[in-house]
Amino acid sequence: MTEFQHGGDLYTIMEKGGRTEGELLDFSANINPLGMPERVRAAAASALAFCDHYPDPKCRALARALAEKERIPQEYLVFGNGAADLIFRIAAALRPRKALVTAPTFSEYENALKSVQCQVLHYALEKEKDFQLDEAFLACLDEPLDMVFLCNPNNPTGQLIPPDLLERIAEKCEEKEIFLVVDECFIDFVKEPQVCTVKDLLFQCRYLFVLRAFTKNYGMAGLRLGYGMCARPDVLRLMREAGPPWNVSLVAQKAGIQALQEDDYLQKARDLIFVQREKLRQQLIGLGYWVLEAAANYLLFQLRQLEDPAYIDEFTSDLLEDGILIRDCSNYEGIGRGYFRIAVRTEEENQRLVEALIRRERRWQKQL
Amino acid sequence: MTEFQHGGDLYTIMEKGGRTEGELLDFSANINPLGMPERVRAAAASALAFCDHYPDPKCRALARALAEKERIPQEYLVFGNGAADLIFRIAAALRPRKALVTAPTFSEYENALKSVQCQVLHYALEKEKDFQLDEAFLACLDEPLDMVFLCNPNNPTGQLIPPDLLERIAEKCEEKEIFLVVDECFIDFVKEPQVCTVKDLLFQCRYLFVLRAFTKNYGMAGLRLGYGMCARPDVLRLMREAGPPWNVSLVAQKAGIQALQEDDYLQKARDLIFVQREKLRQQLIGLGYWVLEAAANYLLFQLRQLEDPAYIDEFTSDLLEDGILIRDCSNYEGIGRGYFRIAVRTEEENQRLVEALIRRERRWQKQL
Repeated sequence: MTEFQHGGDLYTIMEKGGRTEGELLDFSANINPLGMPERVRAAAASALAFCDHYPDPKCRALARALAEKERIPQEYLVFGNGAADLIFRIAAALRPRKALVTAPTFSEYENALKSVQCQVLHYALEKEKDFQLDEAFLACLDEPLDMVFLCNPNNPTGQLIPPDLLERIAEKCEEKEIFLVVDECFIDFVKEPQVCTVKDLLFQCRYLFVLRAFTKNYGMAGLRLGYGMCARPDVLRLMREAGPPWNVSLVAQKAGIQALQEDDYLQKARDLIFVQREKLRQQLIGLGYWVLEAAANYLLFQLRQLEDPAYIDEFTSDLLEDGILIRDCSNYEGIGRGYFRIAVRTEEENQRLVEALIRRERRWQKQL
Repeated sequence: MTEFQHGGDLYTIMEKGGRTEGELLDFSANINPLGMPERVRAAAASALAFCDHYPDPKCRALARALAEKERIPQEYLVFGNGAADLIFRIAAALRPRKALVTAPTFSEYENALKSVQCQVLHYALEKEKDFQLDEAFLACLDEPLDMVFLCNPNNPTGQLIPPDLLERIAEKCEEKEIFLVVDECFIDFVKEPQVCTVKDLLFQCRYLFVLRAFTKNYGMAGLRLGYGMCARPDVLRLMREAGPPWNVSLVAQKAGIQALQEDDYLQKARDLIFVQREKLRQQLIGLGYWVLEAAANYLLFQLRQLEDPAYIDEFTSDLLEDGILIRDCSNYEGIGRGYFRIAVRTEEENQRLVEALIRRERRWQKQL
């Protein structure tokens, strides 16, 4: 666990390759391709004038704005230094002994669970079923479990859980008193977020926690801001006590308040992603890759020549020679060989990636 | 523990009183009165342009700059979302069962220890001895302890631990395998930091952790940046795993790198504090308060009419009518009645406080 396990690790690349930030095109982190909205950046910049003061530990102004936007009581909200902060806090607060996660999925669930010595079970998602979560998952909830993490849409697969299945899972967790954490960090990039979210179940499920982030949808990864929604004040209080009180910077709070005004920007990003995602997917299929249909702002694909280790092993380094960074998925639990994940970016950037892929495939063809 | 326990709680005041940020003069948080250096603010502002990327989870550029400045190996460094993040992480990483803290001291040590179900013992500092730590503390280390927190200079008393005593404490902790955390967040404001720090002991003490922050000395409380120094890679690895990987924002990292260049600014702040601290102290004594001689950028004082509950209880609210916020110390463990803490600020600001105090005392004299 000492090695960094995620996309977006520009810094290791820069260290090794002597490159600067501007020279790399990053497809490895699933960030809104439009970058941080100008008014959000301006709000963050003007917040700097007040940064010799501590931030509000209760994020009150942000909580008021978000509660209104989400149409939930302010008391249901908890804020984190990015969504990952809240993943660790919920594990630290509830100290589950046995938990279930899917494989593959975002690795911080397991890291957080292990940090409190929790036993982690894996529910294997299968390539043959397009890594879809299916009804068989319900039977696993008969196990004596304390916590379940589900990512919807899932990272790195981009697959949505069918809304009726997710609702049945939530109901069964409620009945069995299993704490269900649904990570909806990418839900703003699915076509019908309001159909897919379990937010409305909060009013009837006391064992439900919904996780969200500003990081991806508003291009704020460097500022760190996530939030959680839950109807349990006792759980939220334990989460606040599980870490330092000033965990959300003043800059992130002010930027977050402005971000909530950026509906047009978000819609523009959604429109871009819906078009470019399918276009990029078809281009990858044209290159002979197996490419999952995805509901989020990223695509998971598998290379074809799986029998050739060098072809797979040198895939990311070949692209890096063109200044392009993608996410090698080999360190995800429960995924096979030759899988990679790319963010959907602007048309021009996607085409730079596709051209680099074409050049790379041609080079390998010649070598054969 | 649900109520906020610290100074700097401008936000509750603003909510209750309908005041804006600019209308309050905050003596309750111990921040550098010169505010954030202009070049640090500029570095933070320019970092915003890159904030649609994740921060470097390893803070490599900052670690290189800091290691050179502190003259310690980079491998000894760990960074946090403020020093408080590291207090919670070291408790979560080492899971002590029994720990010792002084009373009074900064309350987050105890909060962090309790978050991992650690039993917390208190070593009472006595007013009669000016809240000084004395040799009797050494005997307490014969107890079966796992961890000790010492704040040097201490918060809220501003008292330094005599260097020879602190060295003996560190040696005894080493011998007994008790993890000693020395919080030096205010050490830049003491006259001889190099004499008072235990940093040089890191090369011989494997059970020593030295905590520092950029928050106070560089006026960066709203950005959150702290660091720890320790010769144990195993401990630092556990601390990194005890929370999310991207805990230090990109803005804080870039601001921190610039802050390390601000020696002149820091010296200017030190010169100001050394003069104003003594002046302010004499003025408070002139008002009849009991005022501790302090080594840091804040003063602890006790009111005189301790037999009059209203006189004490209305002290902070009376000052607030003049737009001045101070720290009521009544919620510190192990402190008596009528104690308050104020930061040392600029001459003009200090005089505003003193004038408000004079007015307040006159009002009470009339009522008698």
